[in-house]
Amino acid sequence: MENRYDIAIIGSGPAGLSAAINARIRNKNIILFGYKDLSNKLVKASKINNYLGFYDITGEQLKNNFQKHIEKLNINIINERINEIYSMGDYFSLMVNEKCYEARSIIIATGIEYTKPIKGEDEFLGRGVGYCATCDAPLYRDKTVTVIGYNKEAEEEANYVSELASKLYYIPMYEENYNLRKDIVVIKDKPLEILGDNKVGKLKLKSKEIYTDGVFVLKDSISPAQLVPGLLMEEGHIKVDRSMKTNIKGCFAAGDCVGKPYQYMKAAGEGLIAALSAVTYIDINKIY
Amino acid sequence: MENRYDIAIIGSGPAGLSAAINARIRNKNIILFGYKDLSNKLVKASKINNYLGFYDITGEQLKNNFQKHIEKLNINIINERINEIYSMGDYFSLMVNEKCYEARSIIIATGIEYTKPIKGEDEFLGRGVGYCATCDAPLYRDKTVTVIGYNKEAEEEANYVSELASKLYYIPMYEENYNLRKDIVVIKDKPLEILGDNKVGKLKLKSKEIYTDGVFVLKDSISPAQLVPGLLMEEGHIKVDRSMKTNIKGCFAAGDCVGKPYQYMKAAGEGLIAALSAVTYIDINKIY
Ligand SMILES: Cc1cc2nc3c(=O)[nH]c(=O)nc-3n(C[C@H](O)[C@H](O)[C@H](O)COP(=O)(O)OP(=O)(O)OC[C@H]3O[C@@H](n4cnc5c(N)ncnc54)[C@H](O)[C@@H]3O)c2cc1C
Ligand SMILES: Cc1cc2nc3c(=O)[nH]c(=O)nc-3n(C[C@H](O)[C@H](O)[C@H](O)COP(=O)(O)OP(=O)(O)OC[C@H]3O[C@@H](n4cnc5c(N)ncnc54)[C@H](O)[C@@H]3O)c2cc1C
Repeated sequence: MENRYDIAIIGSGPAGLSAAINARIRNKNIILFGYKDLSNKLVKASKINNYLGFYDITGEQLKNNFQKHIEKLNINIINERINEIYSMGDYFSLMVNEKCYEARSIIIATGIEYTKPIKGEDEFLGRGVGYCATCDAPLYRDKTVTVIGYNKEAEEEANYVSELASKLYYIPMYEENYNLRKDIVVIKDKPLEILGDNKVGKLKLKSKEIYTDGVFVLKDSISPAQLVPGLLMEEGHIKVDRSMKTNIKGCFAAGDCVGKPYQYMKAAGEGLIAALSAVTYIDINKIY
Repeated sequence: MENRYDIAIIGSGPAGLSAAINARIRNKNIILFGYKDLSNKLVKASKINNYLGFYDITGEQLKNNFQKHIEKLNINIINERINEIYSMGDYFSLMVNEKCYEARSIIIATGIEYTKPIKGEDEFLGRGVGYCATCDAPLYRDKTVTVIGYNKEAEEEANYVSELASKLYYIPMYEENYNLRKDIVVIKDKPLEILGDNKVGKLKLKSKEIYTDGVFVLKDSISPAQLVPGLLMEEGHIKVDRSMKTNIKGCFAAGDCVGKPYQYMKAAGEGLIAALSAVTYIDINKIY
């Protein structure tokens, strides 16, 4: 297939960027998903002293150096959030709302997310709780759906689902002007617990309860095990060996998502290792 | 003891430097052994593209950036070659010819040495073959000793040993003017094999054989297992876990010496991890 990449890299922090430059230097056909600003954890750092080669630099400045580096190597960041990744045996399918990308190997470099799950979220996952509203929307035709949105991008997904659902509640976890379709009901309240028998039935908020058939929790980052079904975790991190291999063939990982210490240089070093391991994996499995 | 350092770092390549800056930022009392020029593998690289943040940089330029960084943190490089390190239980003794340093923990970041051992070198190690001439000199009083020197520093050791030995052969593996005592016999020849029964008896060279009681092989870098007796190796590299711990309590390692890929960024990332692991080790074992 023409559009199948050698390596798809998910995440544009130091781990993903270091993976991208090393894979590109080895002449691999790569695709890099992330954010124009690279990483919030980079731009928000006021002063960095421990990235060897740069002393007393701001996160913004280090980000600019990283950006210059990938530009010189003609690496673009695809500004899209990957929702789910399926291993298809000898390749992977990466889902981005309505779109789908394919790659022979993947490198997970999504960082670490600190927001705790809502009570009941893990329990009802797949039974009314989901992380990709546009993927699962067809299941909720003419039903009541609640979207808990942690960022502006969630609004788009809510708008899409509301075209199919009979009713849509939107619970924003941020302050801003919301760009939502008129029939969406915005509730400013704190979600406490997802309730139900076998599947989701209602959502308990701080000041009231609402009946709902589905709850989508749209966070900045979803856990790697939700991103890649079947991925083995260990104490909250992706389990990798020293070559950054995960338990899934062709799937590598690097950076904060594989464990502490949470630091730029560690992330960048691991990104390099993951890239070279992916390159070896592809070369060994090449079909001529 | 006043002169006992928290962390001794052996090696001034990217692994050792990254370890040094991170340990210093955590307020540890460190000592860093290595070379004024940091690392030959750095200054000799003509073009580096894969160190995230610097594109199309020469090894010399990257070295200058590293040097500036450590200077800003007031880190000095002690320009000495560590010959042997002994674990004393809760601290380490580091031997430098006549001197001795002490540290609560150590980080081995000595890179990797590509020179192959001479035939018989491994077999007769400790039975006439040695890597530190000044350490073992007393054993060779009034005997015949051969020094195979790979660099100018070996000349100093040869001069020292020749004061005790009855005869000293010096076999230089480099071209230069030799600064050696008059009674030293310089042989320009290629060493092929170390021979003997139970212990070293003679050295076979390309064009002749010489009788000798001891052979010192003074390379740019000695193997980590020779540097730290008891250190566990695995396929030619120091065995470490993901926190850069070795099998010896308080001994950590990073960079090329712990395994492939041999790359700056991997070395720097591991140096950081080793430093933070050493910091934790020291804090846990602190005596108030
Ligand atoms: C304020 C602050 C200051 C810090 N200061 C320092 C410091 O001085 N020194 C130091 O060493 N460390 C510091 N850190 C820690 C450092 O920021 C992290 O360890 C580092 O950023 C981790 O890199 P990473 O590449 O693993 O992940 P991140 O930098 O978190 O990058 C992950 C990227 O992936 C994106 N992503 C996630 N999921 C998806 C998806 N599904 N699809 C597409 N993209 C996705 C994220 O949005 C993000 O852009 C600091 C952190 C913070 C918050
Ligand atoms: C010509 C060349 C070009 C390269 N180009 C690249 C590149 O473009 N990109 C890339 O990522 N990698 C490149 N590499 C590989 C890279 O140089 C190494 O992976 C990296 O230097 C390893 O860092 P390190 O800190 O582990 O060891 P080193 O850089 O080897 O540093 C070890 C230091 O410890 C010192 N030392 C050793 N034993 C002792 C002792 N007993 N006492 C005191 N000091 C001691 C050594 O003398 C040395 O200074 C290149 C290598 C070479 C040779």
